[in-house]
Amino acid sequence: MPAEPELDRARVVLVNSRNPLNIGAAARAMSNFGFTKLRVVNAYAPAYREARSAVGASEVLANAEEFAHVAEAVADCTLVVGTTAVGNRKLQQEVKRTEQGALQIRKALRAGRVALLFGSERVGLSNEEMSHCHWLMRIPTRKEHISMNLGQAVAVCLYELVRKGRSASAPEKRPAAPGRDLERFSEILSDVLRKSGYPGPPASNEQKIRRLIRRMKLSAEDSEIWMGIVRQILWKVGKE
Amino acid sequence: MPAEPELDRARVVLVNSRNPLNIGAAARAMSNFGFTKLRVVNAYAPAYREARSAVGASEVLANAEEFAHVAEAVADCTLVVGTTAVGNRKLQQEVKRTEQGALQIRKALRAGRVALLFGSERVGLSNEEMSHCHWLMRIPTRKEHISMNLGQAVAVCLYELVRKGRSASAPEKRPAAPGRDLERFSEILSDVLRKSGYPGPPASNEQKIRRLIRRMKLSAEDSEIWMGIVRQILWKVGKE
Repeated sequence: MPAEPELDRARVVLVNSRNPLNIGAAARAMSNFGFTKLRVVNAYAPAYREARSAVGASEVLANAEEFAHVAEAVADCTLVVGTTAVGNRKLQQEVKRTEQGALQIRKALRAGRVALLFGSERVGLSNEEMSHCHWLMRIPTRKEHISMNLGQAVAVCLYELVRKGRSASAPEKRPAAPGRDLERFSEILSDVLRKSGYPGPPASNEQKIRRLIRRMKLSAEDSEIWMGIVRQILWKVGKE
Repeated sequence: MPAEPELDRARVVLVNSRNPLNIGAAARAMSNFGFTKLRVVNAYAPAYREARSAVGASEVLANAEEFAHVAEAVADCTLVVGTTAVGNRKLQQEVKRTEQGALQIRKALRAGRVALLFGSERVGLSNEEMSHCHWLMRIPTRKEHISMNLGQAVAVCLYELVRKGRSASAPEKRPAAPGRDLERFSEILSDVLRKSGYPGPPASNEQKIRRLIRRMKLSAEDSEIWMGIVRQILWKVGKE
């Protein structure tokens, strides 16, 4: 368990951001509310450069980390939450309102790292990107106008994380499995299924498996057990 | 007392705004959260024009009202609240945090109109402008970086006005899988492991698997998916 202060254990992850003003605004809101760790996945390079070189760009931006894929950006996190405006899209994961979701994020931050994902300005997170998430969170906007500006959405979510609420003290949970272990588990199980002739297109099966495994809310210990199980099975089905 | 819906009784008042993007962002957040009445005091004319003519400018902006002075912009309001980052300035009025202030604003909206003032991007509200306010409200930013972007500050304040309080309804849980399904799942997985050469005595492995599967807290739906997975694998490992 990292010895960082609680808010330093949160990772704000911007996926496919295209607008330097939004990247800058996200970093500013982070600084306002005391968050320090920004991760940027597949950012549009000129936008990212412009945001970093803007006058008054914060320390948050200077220390931001870049990743090519969501899987790498959440590898060290025990809880991964995607933000979504919901809309017409049919979602395959549980969606919590910010008021509820933030309570659970705060609880998880006591024990480990949490990634909070924000998708691109135009389309939000893709199904593939969402499949890395344990659950999704939405800001309660009205249904006639659900889509928020990225910088404002980040500000509202982070505010909800630091605002005073009920003191949510809950029983200690066992340490959760980090994202990299869940991803490994997903990969091996997908491999087993492919080799076993499980019906359906491999790519969509992979996402289905990824979501299924995130819904298990695995502890680090159980994740080890499962890994042993699927490795053994993989060895067996791969033999012939 | 006006017969408007409660949120329509709120007036968001931007004082001395200079940046068209911020004016647009404020209007967008209003629309996201269901507020309709924007008032603009002494806006920098070109910025205001640019905001109103922007592509996708909302109905909120189209219906915005212009005033030359704060006094006129709040004349029909029974409660006037100014937002402030506080900072080093000595304030002469009570300052409430958003969590507290929003409760009182919501109460006041039941009975009459409420104005919520936001000052200019650079210096916030002047003492003169603040003197029109009953009290002040501040967003709980950290003291090393108190000053928020205008559009983000508006978004956070309006979110706090519409967010659900303590009675936040718990997320609906999906129906859990019945014991018989968990047992069937355990049996098949144990069978797969036996056939795959998983180490350890079968009887104690069975118990381990049974406990492992109970810790998953499976929904009925996910239990179906897992059943399909392990059946397919069983078919494969049992073939030889």
